[in-house]
Amino acid sequence: MTTLTLGEIAARFGLELRGDAATEIRGVATLAEAGPGQLGFLANPRYRAQLASTRAGAIVLRAGDADAFRGAALVAPDPYVAFARIATVYERMPAAAPGAHASAVVADGARVAASASIGPHCVVDAEAEIGEGAILGAHCIIGRGCVVGAQSRLVARVTLVQDVRLGKRVLIHPGAVIGADGFGIAFAKDHWEKVPQLGGVVVGDDCEIGANTTIDRGALGDTVLEEDVRLDNQIQIAHNVFVGAHTAMAGCAAVAGSARIGRYCLIGGAAGILGHLEVADRVTVTAMSLVTHSLREPGEYSSGTPIQENRQWRRNAARFKHLDDFVRRIDAARREPES
Amino acid sequence: MTTLTLGEIAARFGLELRGDAATEIRGVATLAEAGPGQLGFLANPRYRAQLASTRAGAIVLRAGDADAFRGAALVAPDPYVAFARIATVYERMPAAAPGAHASAVVADGARVAASASIGPHCVVDAEAEIGEGAILGAHCIIGRGCVVGAQSRLVARVTLVQDVRLGKRVLIHPGAVIGADGFGIAFAKDHWEKVPQLGGVVVGDDCEIGANTTIDRGALGDTVLEEDVRLDNQIQIAHNVFVGAHTAMAGCAAVAGSARIGRYCLIGGAAGILGHLEVADRVTVTAMSLVTHSLREPGEYSSGTPIQENRQWRRNAARFKHLDDFVRRIDAARREPES
Amino acid sequence: MTTLTLGEIAARFGLELRGDAATEIRGVATLAEAGPGQLGFLANPRYRAQLASTRAGAIVLRAGDADAFRGAALVAPDPYVAFARIATVYERMPAAAPGAHASAVVADGARVAASASIGPHCVVDAEAEIGEGAILGAHCIIGRGCVVGAQSRLVARVTLVQDVRLGKRVLIHPGAVIGADGFGIAFAKDHWEKVPQLGGVVVGDDCEIGANTTIDRGALGDTVLEEDVRLDNQIQIAHNVFVGAHTAMAGCAAVAGSARIGRYCLIGGAAGILGHLEVADRVTVTAMSLVTHSLREPGEYSSGTPIQENRQWRRNAARFKHLDDFVRRIDAARREPES
Repeated sequence: MTTLTLGEIAARFGLELRGDAATEIRGVATLAEAGPGQLGFLANPRYRAQLASTRAGAIVLRAGDADAFRGAALVAPDPYVAFARIATVYERMPAAAPGAHASAVVADGARVAASASIGPHCVVDAEAEIGEGAILGAHCIIGRGCVVGAQSRLVARVTLVQDVRLGKRVLIHPGAVIGADGFGIAFAKDHWEKVPQLGGVVVGDDCEIGANTTIDRGALGDTVLEEDVRLDNQIQIAHNVFVGAHTAMAGCAAVAGSARIGRYCLIGGAAGILGHLEVADRVTVTAMSLVTHSLREPGEYSSGTPIQENRQWRRNAARFKHLDDFVRRIDAARREPES
Repeated sequence: MTTLTLGEIAARFGLELRGDAATEIRGVATLAEAGPGQLGFLANPRYRAQLASTRAGAIVLRAGDADAFRGAALVAPDPYVAFARIATVYERMPAAAPGAHASAVVADGARVAASASIGPHCVVDAEAEIGEGAILGAHCIIGRGCVVGAQSRLVARVTLVQDVRLGKRVLIHPGAVIGADGFGIAFAKDHWEKVPQLGGVVVGDDCEIGANTTIDRGALGDTVLEEDVRLDNQIQIAHNVFVGAHTAMAGCAAVAGSARIGRYCLIGGAAGILGHLEVADRVTVTAMSLVTHSLREPGEYSSGTPIQENRQWRRNAARFKHLDDFVRRIDAARREPES
Repeated sequence: MTTLTLGEIAARFGLELRGDAATEIRGVATLAEAGPGQLGFLANPRYRAQLASTRAGAIVLRAGDADAFRGAALVAPDPYVAFARIATVYERMPAAAPGAHASAVVADGARVAASASIGPHCVVDAEAEIGEGAILGAHCIIGRGCVVGAQSRLVARVTLVQDVRLGKRVLIHPGAVIGADGFGIAFAKDHWEKVPQLGGVVVGDDCEIGANTTIDRGALGDTVLEEDVRLDNQIQIAHNVFVGAHTAMAGCAAVAGSARIGRYCLIGGAAGILGHLEVADRVTVTAMSLVTHSLREPGEYSSGTPIQENRQWRRNAARFKHLDDFVRRIDAARREPES
């Protein structure tokens, strides 16, 4: 168990300390649950009232909030970021010894760095490459032409199907499938024919990819995630999509083929983006919205209707079905007033 | 192949028998497909007409329906529940010998009950615990700090990443990932930093979790499913979500971080619930609806618009884009009538 | 690396050649990226302008477009289909030696064709059958009562849980789970009871199933995909669904239990179809639409609202909440004009 004093934390993370520098901190917790010896944080103003009752050994907060707090505090301009960094001290990372587990199947010819760790039952293709310090948890499959960059971690059961090149420090959670064939089919009179998928996937440095997320390889050319793209669970990225640096997507979002998404975008949960569209930098799409045309200006975009009690919703939804008729009727009546 | 007489079935499940107690039943089927020797059931009134033509050896039905039926019958107050119980007799469960398959990798230190069964290529961490009678099908991964409760069954290829504690008789289908990191990221001026995810997942007794469903571990504190929660396939449960007992969710539903869902709720397929909201007990959310504010009263809730032929829908959707303007214009005109 | 002359390609695929038959083609690429020695194609008119600047060694295009192009060309009535076929020449398929990898666990009793290939860490049940020329990539699980038809390919990490019968030439991508229990639960006063799922899944010849897609087995009777059904990634097909031949579904679509979908349908990404509905042949459902009643006529169907800048959307959405009241109020006013 890691223990640091408040003074050590303040020094290491460059924070202003208010209170006893010798106070020992053995872990982190929420304001509501933290006890003595634990560090809490206040970032969201709506939890400010909890300052009065918290039992935390110390709190990370903004200067303005610190003035109203009588306990020990670490003052930070952005308490959430400061807390995130401090919490890494108390995170227990899995041990990962260099070398391949006896049950792993590493083909002759695979280039595996000496410091890389390959877990139980992993399968590594002859034409794959695993970088220095990379960690493959149990059951990962690294297919032909795939590269796992240095210090990347595939937590467990990650499949890189073919021609997937990961940058450095990429983190991928279990069940993710990167580099499967894109959905390319051509209709030939009365049946479908498969369009061979010949491209790859390029994932930039510091990307994170969630559990059971899928990213298909390009049909021709690559599917691309620039650096620091953050994908939650169960996201679908189709072939030849481009996602700009620092864009984050919440769970279950889906992006259709050849869409091009800018940098610093925020894509809400279960939102959809149709194929071949362009989304500008710094666009926010709210949850479960469907982007059906290119969004060329930064801003926040939405579709859908508000949730309502079902009976009321049904009445409104029934009117929506005839909305155009209604508007036409009213407009016509206003042009030709009833005599 | 199991064979029971109608009399044996009536006695074992406490049902009223009408007909020949010696009739042998060798399986179960739908009303439309059942033949002699098979048991059918009538629960949904819209299949009542099939009573006249069914060839089933006997039918499970309500007293009211039994009066109109001339064949052998088992009378039950709730025929669907009675049928579900009877059908278990004819279910062929996979054989699961106690002990670990030779290809499994069970770390020294793992506490595995003598009666537990560990399938081919499973991986069990040194700090994991497998309870009495638990069954792990092929390719399961049980990570550090995880507990599989007694009589639980992980069908195959289930991943418990870290700090996941399953109750008793929990059933999990292939591809499910429980205990992966939640989606915690903090924006630091021009890039994202990962917020360490330090909590776990607690799953109550008798829960069922569908194929490729993901349940993230808490950031601080746990993600919780109380007992008898039923999750279909491809559901996403984010970090620190709380799901009350007996709540059921249909496929592809998604719940964002720290949402708190009550007991006996029914969440429709592909419905979404935003983060930090509260949903009361006994709330129904219809399919593909998005819950954007707390629902504090029991009842049924919906969002969206009805499906229509595309050309008609386009016209109505175009009007929706200007609905506020239209209402304002009409209201203004009514206040100042055209002269 | 494969190399063919334009003349060889024209002859093999029955295309009209314009230009030098001896030109060597070593690969395929997009119009924008193709260089000499590569074949491009023009199918979508909006890329026609690229004809002027392309450096491709030759282009597959329609006769009408060929007249305006001065370089070498292969003329096809459907350039996309022709290109798909030609591209297979340049596709490098994974090597798959007949026989089972040493790490695979193939139970005694399993019927495995001599020409079938079983990859590392696969698990094949005693009551399973693998047909001639079938290929199982790494980590596939073939459960009891499952049949993999001749020439089918399970790319990697595919799970056939129970009673799944695949036709010939079926292609399944990683993470797919076929034949897991359907979501059958019966409410018994104060808790759920599981309804045993006793049916199977039947998948016709030439189907393709995407990464992390789930198809549940029937409760009683089978879930059915007819031949040439094409499913993208992360699709959910519930128990007892029927999907007609040649129907294609884009990523994240979901179909609830016992729905019956016709032939030659196109189901858009993240679209939903409720249970027990019927969808006629040749129905198109646009992305993220929800089918809540049977669609008995061919055609295109949609639901939802257009995406808008969030502030404008909020105003319109607020009006939707009171749409019925508004219509009633206006209609009443028109019946009783203000005096």
